[in-house]
Amino acid sequence: MRMYDVIMKKRNGGVLTEEEIREVISGYVAGEIPDYQMSAFLMAVYFQGMTEEETVAMTEAVAHSGDMVDLSAIAGIKVDKHSTGGVGDKTSLIIGPIVAACGVKVAKMSGRGLGHTGGTVDKMEAIPGMRTDLSREEFFRVVNQTGLSIIGQTGNLAPADKKLYALRDVTATVDSIPLIAVSIMSKKLAAGSDAILLDVKTGSGAFMKTLEDSIALAKEMVSIGENAGRKTAALITDMDIPLGNNIGNSLEVMEAVETLKGNGPADLTEVCIHLAGNMLYLAGKGTIEECMALAKAKIEDGSALERLAAMVEAQGGDASVILDPSRFAKAPYSMQVFAEKEGYIGAMDTEGCGIASSMLGAGRQTKDSAIDPAAGIVLKRKVGDYVTKEDVIAVLYTSDSSLLEQAQKKYVSSVRIQVEAPKKEPLIYARVTKEAVERF
Amino acid sequence: MRMYDVIMKKRNGGVLTEEEIREVISGYVAGEIPDYQMSAFLMAVYFQGMTEEETVAMTEAVAHSGDMVDLSAIAGIKVDKHSTGGVGDKTSLIIGPIVAACGVKVAKMSGRGLGHTGGTVDKMEAIPGMRTDLSREEFFRVVNQTGLSIIGQTGNLAPADKKLYALRDVTATVDSIPLIAVSIMSKKLAAGSDAILLDVKTGSGAFMKTLEDSIALAKEMVSIGENAGRKTAALITDMDIPLGNNIGNSLEVMEAVETLKGNGPADLTEVCIHLAGNMLYLAGKGTIEECMALAKAKIEDGSALERLAAMVEAQGGDASVILDPSRFAKAPYSMQVFAEKEGYIGAMDTEGCGIASSMLGAGRQTKDSAIDPAAGIVLKRKVGDYVTKEDVIAVLYTSDSSLLEQAQKKYVSSVRIQVEAPKKEPLIYARVTKEAVERF
Repeated sequence: MRMYDVIMKKRNGGVLTEEEIREVISGYVAGEIPDYQMSAFLMAVYFQGMTEEETVAMTEAVAHSGDMVDLSAIAGIKVDKHSTGGVGDKTSLIIGPIVAACGVKVAKMSGRGLGHTGGTVDKMEAIPGMRTDLSREEFFRVVNQTGLSIIGQTGNLAPADKKLYALRDVTATVDSIPLIAVSIMSKKLAAGSDAILLDVKTGSGAFMKTLEDSIALAKEMVSIGENAGRKTAALITDMDIPLGNNIGNSLEVMEAVETLKGNGPADLTEVCIHLAGNMLYLAGKGTIEECMALAKAKIEDGSALERLAAMVEAQGGDASVILDPSRFAKAPYSMQVFAEKEGYIGAMDTEGCGIASSMLGAGRQTKDSAIDPAAGIVLKRKVGDYVTKEDVIAVLYTSDSSLLEQAQKKYVSSVRIQVEAPKKEPLIYARVTKEAVERF
Repeated sequence: MRMYDVIMKKRNGGVLTEEEIREVISGYVAGEIPDYQMSAFLMAVYFQGMTEEETVAMTEAVAHSGDMVDLSAIAGIKVDKHSTGGVGDKTSLIIGPIVAACGVKVAKMSGRGLGHTGGTVDKMEAIPGMRTDLSREEFFRVVNQTGLSIIGQTGNLAPADKKLYALRDVTATVDSIPLIAVSIMSKKLAAGSDAILLDVKTGSGAFMKTLEDSIALAKEMVSIGENAGRKTAALITDMDIPLGNNIGNSLEVMEAVETLKGNGPADLTEVCIHLAGNMLYLAGKGTIEECMALAKAKIEDGSALERLAAMVEAQGGDASVILDPSRFAKAPYSMQVFAEKEGYIGAMDTEGCGIASSMLGAGRQTKDSAIDPAAGIVLKRKVGDYVTKEDVIAVLYTSDSSLLEQAQKKYVSSVRIQVEAPKKEPLIYARVTKEAVERF
C-alpha cells in the first residue's frame, strides 16, 4: 500500500479496503506515514465521507492501536455511557449510581472538560480527596465492591485517536461525522464494556447543532458498536438549553446529589431516567418502561445515592460532602445577573453559557491551566420563563472577582429575551438502535 | 491570520482575501505554516476550487516568493511560451528561432523531462557542448546577440512553487486546475516576459485528458497573465497522438532542424506555424493571418534555422550538428516494431508511447538518473494509417540492448489497430484569449 494511492482513492470517492485502512492507521502510529499525508487524507474523508464498512474498519484499527481493556475480572454485564458533551451535563454522576444500584456494573473512563463543555473527571475532582487516577487493579476492585467506578482515561488507550485528534484539531477536520464516530467509538471499544449507551447532544450547546447531524452521528456509532459485538443504542437529547440549573464543577456535583435525592430539576431528572433506563435495557433488565421504572425506584429508595457515596469513599473522596453538599467549599465571590429587559426568555446560546462559566474559572483557558472547582453559574430562570428587569436570571460564582464583569456580559448576551412565549422543545428527540430510528 | 481559520474558510466554500492568500504563501515559505496544514488546505482547494481573484492573488504571491527576473536589459518585446507537456513536443526549438527571426525576442527558461513527457532542456543538452546553465548576464547577452536563448530555470524563481509542488506530489493534490494554473503562471510571471503564449495540450498524452479541462485551465492561466499586465493567450493543441514522428532527445532535435528546413512532418509544422503566429501576434506583429504567413516565410528563407544555429553556438554548442543532423551520435542498438495485426491504427495511447521512449533511456526513471540522449522512438506509421503485419510501425533506439524487449511490448500495447478508419481529429482545438474562447 502507498499512502499516496489511498489519498487519491478516497479523494476520488473510492471505498478503501479493511486492509488499506488498517495499514493507514498502523503506518501513521508507527510514524511511517507523515502528518502532511494524513491531513490531506482526513480532508478527503471530510469531503467524500466513509461507508459503514470503512468506518467500522477504521474504528477497529484505531481501538486496536493500543490496549484493549479486559473487564472480565469484573463479574456480570458492564454498561458504558458516552455523552458527546454539553453544558451542565452531570448525568454520569447520577445514572452511574442508579445503574449500579440495579446490579449492573459501570466501569467507566471519562474525560476532562474541552472548550465550552465540562468533563466528568473535573467534576469528580471537585470532591475533596477524590482520586480519578486509579490503577487497573484498583479500578476493578472499586467496581466489584461498589458496582461502579469512574476514572480518567488510563493506560495506552487508542493512541492512534490521540494522534489523529491532535492533527484534526489544527487542520479543520474535526467536524466530520465518520471521523467523530471513529474517535468516540474507538475509545469505547478499547474500554471494554459489553454494552454502550450513547447520549448524543443536539442544539446550540452541542457539538452537533442540528437534529439530522445528531441522528447521523448516532447511527454511525450504533453501527460501529453493534458490528464490534457490543449492544449499542443512542438517545438524542436536547442541548439547546443547559441541562439542569448548575454549571461548574462542585455546583454540578451538588445538583447531581440533589437529583439522586429526588430533588433535582425536572429536565435533568427526566433525561437521567431515560438514560439510566436505556442502559438497564441494554443490560437485559426488562423493557424500556420497566427499566425506567426501576431507575426511578432507585432514586426514591435512596440506594442510588448510597452507591455514589460508596464510590466516592472507595476512590478516596470525602463522602460527607455527598451526604451533605452544603459542606462543599463556597466560591468567595458571587454576582447576581438581572434580566436585560422584560419578556420571555426565548432562547439561550448554550455554548455561550458554557463559555461564561469557563471564564469564571470552571473551565481551562489553556490545556494546562488549573480549574476553580467552586466557579460556575446557577441558572435561576431558563427558556420559557417570563422575566422583568428586577428578576435575577442567574448567579455567577468565582474565586477571582476580576473575572465577574466579563462573564456577566457573556452570560447576558447568551440569553435572548423576547415578546412571544417560545415553543416548548422536547428533552429527548429520538432513540437510535441498530433496527430503527424512533423519533419522539 | 490563523492558518486554521483559512483552512476552515476554504473547506466551507468561502473566498479568501488577497491578504489571507499572501500570508498563507509567505508563512509557508518561511516555515511558519507546517506541511500538514498546507496539505489540508490544498485538499480543500481541490474540492472547493478558487475564484479568479483568489487564483490571481495566489499566483502573484507565489511569483513574488523569489526573484522577479528583470528583462529590461534586453531591448524590445520579449515573448515567452509554455507547453503543459507532451510526447514528441519539440516545438520550442522550432518556434523560438522563427519568432527571433521576425525580430521578437525570446528569453526562455525551460524545464527537464517529467514522467512520460520530455523537457526542452534535456533536448538541448543532446547537442554536444550545449550549455543550459547560463548566468543571468550570459543569458541576456545571448538574447541580445541572437534574438533568443533557452536555458534551464536559474536563480531563486518562485521557491514557493517548488515547495508547494513537492507537497502536492505526495498528497494527491496535483490535478487541481487552479493549482496547476498557479504553478505554471507563477514561474512565467517571475521569468519576466511581456507576453506569454500557452500551449495547453489535450488528449491521451497530456496532463489534461479532456478538451473541457484543457479550456478551463487555459482560461485560468490567460486570466492570471492578463491580470498581471502580460499579453496572454492560449492554444489548445492535440496530444492524443505524439507530435511529429520522433520521440527522444537527439531524435527530436533532428526533427526540429528538419522542420526548420521545411521538411518537417505536416502535423508538427502546422502546430509550429500556429504557435509562432500567435506569439508574433501577441508581440504586435500584425493579424494572426499575417503573423502565420511571417512565420512560414522565416522557415522558407532559412533565417529561422540560422537563428537556431546562432543560439546553439552562442551557448557553447556544436552548431555543425544543427546544419547537418546526420552528425548526431547514433544509438548503437535499434529494433523495428511491426504491426500486431492488419487494420487501421485507430488510436495511440500517447502516454504509453512516452513511457516506452523513457524505458529506452530517453527519460529519467528516478529524479537523479542520467538520460541516454540517443534513445527514443521514430514513428513510421501513425493514427489513420492502414498497416499489415509486415509493416514496420516504429523503430526503437537505445544504448542498452536489454531495454528493447520491454519497451517494444509497451509500445505495441500503446497502438490500437482496428477495422474501421478512425475519424480525423483536429490539431488545434481552440484559441483562448481574455475576450473569448474560439473553437476550431
